[in-house]
Amino acid sequence: MKIITLLTDFGSFYPAQMKGVILSRLKDEELTFVDIAHDIPPQDVRAGAFALLSSVRYFPSGTIHIGVVDPGVGTGRLGLVVESGGQLFVGPDNGLLLPAARSLGKPAAYRIAGKFEASNTFHGRDIFAPVAALLAAGQSPSSLGPKVRPKDLDFGEPRRTSNGVEATIIYVDRFGNLILNLRRLPSPELLLKGILLKKVRTYGEARRIEPLITIGSHGFAEIAVNLGSAAEAFCLKVGDRIELEEI
Amino acid sequence: MKIITLLTDFGSFYPAQMKGVILSRLKDEELTFVDIAHDIPPQDVRAGAFALLSSVRYFPSGTIHIGVVDPGVGTGRLGLVVESGGQLFVGPDNGLLLPAARSLGKPAAYRIAGKFEASNTFHGRDIFAPVAALLAAGQSPSSLGPKVRPKDLDFGEPRRTSNGVEATIIYVDRFGNLILNLRRLPSPELLLKGILLKKVRTYGEARRIEPLITIGSHGFAEIAVNLGSAAEAFCLKVGDRIELEEI
Amino acid sequence: MKIITLLTDFGSFYPAQMKGVILSRLKDEELTFVDIAHDIPPQDVRAGAFALLSSVRYFPSGTIHIGVVDPGVGTGRLGLVVESGGQLFVGPDNGLLLPAARSLGKPAAYRIAGKFEASNTFHGRDIFAPVAALLAAGQSPSSLGPKVRPKDLDFGEPRRTSNGVEATIIYVDRFGNLILNLRRLPSPELLLKGILLKKVRTYGEARRIEPLITIGSHGFAEIAVNLGSAAEAFCLKVGDRIELEEI
Repeated sequence: MKIITLLTDFGSFYPAQMKGVILSRLKDEELTFVDIAHDIPPQDVRAGAFALLSSVRYFPSGTIHIGVVDPGVGTGRLGLVVESGGQLFVGPDNGLLLPAARSLGKPAAYRIAGKFEASNTFHGRDIFAPVAALLAAGQSPSSLGPKVRPKDLDFGEPRRTSNGVEATIIYVDRFGNLILNLRRLPSPELLLKGILLKKVRTYGEARRIEPLITIGSHGFAEIAVNLGSAAEAFCLKVGDRIELEEI
Repeated sequence: MKIITLLTDFGSFYPAQMKGVILSRLKDEELTFVDIAHDIPPQDVRAGAFALLSSVRYFPSGTIHIGVVDPGVGTGRLGLVVESGGQLFVGPDNGLLLPAARSLGKPAAYRIAGKFEASNTFHGRDIFAPVAALLAAGQSPSSLGPKVRPKDLDFGEPRRTSNGVEATIIYVDRFGNLILNLRRLPSPELLLKGILLKKVRTYGEARRIEPLITIGSHGFAEIAVNLGSAAEAFCLKVGDRIELEEI
Repeated sequence: MKIITLLTDFGSFYPAQMKGVILSRLKDEELTFVDIAHDIPPQDVRAGAFALLSSVRYFPSGTIHIGVVDPGVGTGRLGLVVESGGQLFVGPDNGLLLPAARSLGKPAAYRIAGKFEASNTFHGRDIFAPVAALLAAGQSPSSLGPKVRPKDLDFGEPRRTSNGVEATIIYVDRFGNLILNLRRLPSPELLLKGILLKKVRTYGEARRIEPLITIGSHGFAEIAVNLGSAAEAFCLKVGDRIELEEI
């Protein structure tokens, strides 16, 4: 049983075309598709990288992940296959795949060198889906092209300020929770825009509509409003830099 | 072939982590995942219960349903396995699972007693998904913990008023149709906010943009605007109480 | 391995009921469901037809497509099975299925003549899903009812104007790209609302936030704003007619 996951910023019906391409080439394989997300903010490679990084550790060895958030489609950017910790990644060489791959071990990356009959705007369907089908059929990553040094991406480092710490919002989830590029909470009490964030292990420790901060299930700091939306309450969005004031 | 359904208020990418956990533990089983919904209004246990109740009767015996709308995650609330009519339900003990389970027969509920290495904020992935994998592998619900009396939930009863009947909106679907906690239409003609609701068997019996009321395919009364949105036209939302005036 | 795709305007949880119905009737078959889209604008048969047309060529022979965008549900409109190019289509006789079927070959259409215990508002679950299960189990389309001439649908033809060409927006995708009923770009430079559209092969050839026009991966002209939203920038939506001025 082969598992192929898909993560894109495509919204609806384009991911189905990728699945159709794979199913057309793997008629005799048993396949399970898992959609990780198709609602990544358009062209937000970093948000896509966060969603992929958060998810891949839960998949078994042998899983093939196709990730396509690809503002450079049709330009000279390379296509990659990355192998790490027994899992495979296929997608553009723009950093999207790297944090997830690095989280599983030491990645080996290969440039997709073959010629594909590709549209100029949809390599997810015309190149990355066929490559995933080749990998699922047993072809080795190294047979697809030469080893390369892939573009990397990080989530930036939080920065000490005179009052506390400055961090960046790397993802806003459906609950309006703000996920920061911060993996450990400073010891003092923390204010955001002058409002105290209760430090908790879980949302339920806060009162109704109380702002809180916790280390989320993905290992990053997360600001939430219990039974409400921190994004709305603090009027913040993905990409914003915030200062957590220590008191 | 094991069927596992998922219903959550998680939006994207968290449900994929649950599937990864299950696939990691069931490598040799043939599995079919069906996503019932992941866009339940955040923390709206009643709306989730309605979506689950509407759906489970269409699944075959042996299906395992994971339902997670869980404002109490990380607090003392129990985790449950519920068996009813040959189907199994896994999720928090907050009433979410009960209307669906009751609709299939007489439910038997078991507390999940085992220890799981769980984050404080995501029991869907860390407890309920592994439990569903155990059930799919053939473990019996009663082996997972002692029998308990689960928390129940109902959709409230419509109430007679001097002018007609008062009901609650328990779900608003994508068309803006308003689903009420009312299973039978009163005989007289009905007004909502002074506007006549045409009683019909199907939307097509109403004129374009004509407000109507019908018993929906789920067995509950549903107010719609043919080829329009009743939620917008009447400015109503989930949880609102409305009076249907009889004339 | 049978592949069944679903395309609807139902949003969440109703498509899962259709899958439950099919799984209940095909316990011994190996099935793969592919969701093409469930977020077609409500009752927009033409947008649904475009999404289906764009997608079916990527699926293998033998695929069964269920398409339900069905403003006429419960009225006298027929239900259809259409066979074309080795693929099968099931849905209402309102034109939804025809452009996709025609794109694969010469369609043969059959009226669904059998009696089904059907609600008045959800034939997707009560008629089309059971019919798809029958087809997946090997029943022939012609055994389901007599051959009929199906309702067709086209996307309209662009029209020459004194200044250029008038076209209709048939779909707006998640990026805010505007897809037109135009399959070939006129040779001169083109203006939309007085603004030059750069003719490109791929988005990356335009500068940041530069408006562009290209032939999309589906074969239709597409107006985009590189790394932005053309729908927002030009304040346009599905169904709008626009004039492309030639200079």
